[in-house]
Amino acid sequence: MNVIDIIVAKRDGRELTPAQIDWVVEAYARDAVAEEQMAALSMAVLWRGMSRAEVSRWTEAMTRSGTRLDFADLPRPTTDKHSTGGVGDKITLALTPAVAACGAAVPQLSGRGLGHTGGTLDKLEAIPGWRSHLSPTEMRSALRDVGGVVCAAGPDLAPADRKLYALRDVTGTVESIPLIASSIMSKKLAEGTGALVLDVKVGSGAFMKTMSDARALARTMVDIGTDHEVATVALLTAMDTPVGREVGNAREVAEACEVLAGGGPEDVVELTVALGREMLSAAGLTAAKDPATALADGSAMDVWRRMVRAQGGDPDAPLPTAREHAQILAGRSGVVRRLDALAVGRAAWSLGAGRDRKEDSVSAGAGVRLHAKPGDRIQASQPLFTLYTDEADRLQDAARELTDSYTVEDVAPDHTLGPPASLVLERVANDHRN
Amino acid sequence: MNVIDIIVAKRDGRELTPAQIDWVVEAYARDAVAEEQMAALSMAVLWRGMSRAEVSRWTEAMTRSGTRLDFADLPRPTTDKHSTGGVGDKITLALTPAVAACGAAVPQLSGRGLGHTGGTLDKLEAIPGWRSHLSPTEMRSALRDVGGVVCAAGPDLAPADRKLYALRDVTGTVESIPLIASSIMSKKLAEGTGALVLDVKVGSGAFMKTMSDARALARTMVDIGTDHEVATVALLTAMDTPVGREVGNAREVAEACEVLAGGGPEDVVELTVALGREMLSAAGLTAAKDPATALADGSAMDVWRRMVRAQGGDPDAPLPTAREHAQILAGRSGVVRRLDALAVGRAAWSLGAGRDRKEDSVSAGAGVRLHAKPGDRIQASQPLFTLYTDEADRLQDAARELTDSYTVEDVAPDHTLGPPASLVLERVANDHRN
Repeated sequence: MNVIDIIVAKRDGRELTPAQIDWVVEAYARDAVAEEQMAALSMAVLWRGMSRAEVSRWTEAMTRSGTRLDFADLPRPTTDKHSTGGVGDKITLALTPAVAACGAAVPQLSGRGLGHTGGTLDKLEAIPGWRSHLSPTEMRSALRDVGGVVCAAGPDLAPADRKLYALRDVTGTVESIPLIASSIMSKKLAEGTGALVLDVKVGSGAFMKTMSDARALARTMVDIGTDHEVATVALLTAMDTPVGREVGNAREVAEACEVLAGGGPEDVVELTVALGREMLSAAGLTAAKDPATALADGSAMDVWRRMVRAQGGDPDAPLPTAREHAQILAGRSGVVRRLDALAVGRAAWSLGAGRDRKEDSVSAGAGVRLHAKPGDRIQASQPLFTLYTDEADRLQDAARELTDSYTVEDVAPDHTLGPPASLVLERVANDHRN
Repeated sequence: MNVIDIIVAKRDGRELTPAQIDWVVEAYARDAVAEEQMAALSMAVLWRGMSRAEVSRWTEAMTRSGTRLDFADLPRPTTDKHSTGGVGDKITLALTPAVAACGAAVPQLSGRGLGHTGGTLDKLEAIPGWRSHLSPTEMRSALRDVGGVVCAAGPDLAPADRKLYALRDVTGTVESIPLIASSIMSKKLAEGTGALVLDVKVGSGAFMKTMSDARALARTMVDIGTDHEVATVALLTAMDTPVGREVGNAREVAEACEVLAGGGPEDVVELTVALGREMLSAAGLTAAKDPATALADGSAMDVWRRMVRAQGGDPDAPLPTAREHAQILAGRSGVVRRLDALAVGRAAWSLGAGRDRKEDSVSAGAGVRLHAKPGDRIQASQPLFTLYTDEADRLQDAARELTDSYTVEDVAPDHTLGPPASLVLERVANDHRN
């Protein structure tokens, strides 16, 4: 087996054989294929694409480069959710305990944020005492005893993907649907979940800007899951405007707690319930309690408190707050028509909620409160945004990010605004197969 | 300036700016752009191509990464030839002294062979005492006193190209016309020649297999030369069958000496004269002696002997011979219709005339003698090939390479064979411009 032959085959548009894929991923993981060779191959994959058979095999090879967890012996079926990343996306926080409260076990291995979208671990680490690193044994007992766990992926989980992800990041080869899909799915196969729901975000604040790209990514991931006997469904959900009204680590934890207490913004609740139902259904728990009930009856909150405690956190401790804040006021009255997720994400990032490089730490208290969202009526001089940061000199940059992030239009005072559109745009499942 | 932006721009089919090209080549030469980043960029260039402005600038940036020699103060105009590499291509050996004998100075920086095509330096090193390494001062005095020099490119000549060439070799990014053209031309610009003739080989034994690829490469190189005020012309020449009747280092030197003595195979003489006339014309020496005359009157041979001596070689010393030889005989009578250059090149290579890796040494005496070439009548049991090697156990592999390398057809004994076709297929010059 020769890596140059493999690069040339893909470069010239040929399909790689299973043996070629197994060999190149395995050899790359043990440094027998050089970074420059994998970079050339990644660019060739970005150019030529991969067939369903290729991308499934590639994913499996990456999974096999490390440990694959197995929770088949647990008394409950496992189910998980993965989001491709959005602004204000705190869905995992309320969703995991809600689904666990309905009878499934949720074994989520999660990551940190990079760039304008936050990471679930960064959010949870805002809780005093909470720690992301669990041993496989701790993870297993948390799943058995509590039903839900969100923890950091160890170095043993799909190490080939870890290496390739870092390489793609510096070689302009991130934007390849087969490479994105196999990266996500290799980790999800390795974490050993039996069912999986993908929240594929579409819009200005998402990695996928168009429905057709999002659909292709969703289809590819559903196919990979199906090929590996993980019941997989994807929802395409809107990410033109942030989810909820809070963006920033501790701020999003607080908003998730409102949802767990039976309140919270409608869009957060809608997504949590929609994804939760899909997770239960994919796990075969069709007669289970409804996640909306688990949020309403306090059972989801109970699981949340136990989950936080199981990972060393204190669910009653006050969450960190930022040292400084400032407000941006509306210049005119009207109805908010647009509130750009990317701009809000970048503002929160520049306030300290996100990181530039993976070595950086994040501020727990930094972020943005959205006082008005699309469809809301506002009055001139009413606050639109409150910015939170630990360093006052960051406010200026963040305010600049938000300058053109929204539009306000006139409406007659008696005009009736329609109900907000559903965030769920489309569902991709294993319907079209065979 | 950010290398990822540059990779992404090319990946997405955009034209790179002069500043981007200058920066990325310069940063790569000083290791500030990583090998994996340049590998991804090379694959993106292979995919998307480069405009004339881009490839010209890229070439210039690679030239500028090292020293650029300048022979403008010499009393004679400089002119050089570069061949893209063929089997049995010993043209430089007789051509350089022939053109020098007609009044030009030929400052050729040359390379070693890799794979099935031999390198000019490997051939010259078959001459006892001859050395390839000259300082710039020695090169200048050889050009002034003798008129011709063929020596090794020092580490200072287009070092960015040297690095990129090694990278392309291991990343499946060799086959890109802009990258091939800029690699060749960056070294030719750096060697300081005022005029340049390119011998672009086409056919089974050449790197370019089709006329359209060869034409595109020739056009790109002519454009680069023109853009840098080097008078550049390309001849597309046939490389379906080896040039001449000898393949292998010392064997090719001996055949070149026959040409210098006024004899030698017709095809070698034809190419030498055609390229020599183009070199003189490109240098503006339109009223110079004709290279055919220089071969016939012994003046080219005189320059050859001085050239060899100037680089430490003894033109009268016997050339090395191989320890072992074997013959392949014709199985039937008829006319040779086809004799595949690639197969012969691979046979010579496996006999020890070429190298697998650049650290390997080559055998001076190894090679193949072609007793019959396309168009020749042969009799059954007459020798077709003699194989020469220092190691008898290499004969088997070489013979196997030659098994299907030729075809023999019946012809009536009184059938008149037409004259051989010209090796020069097409001429590409700066005619179509502006």
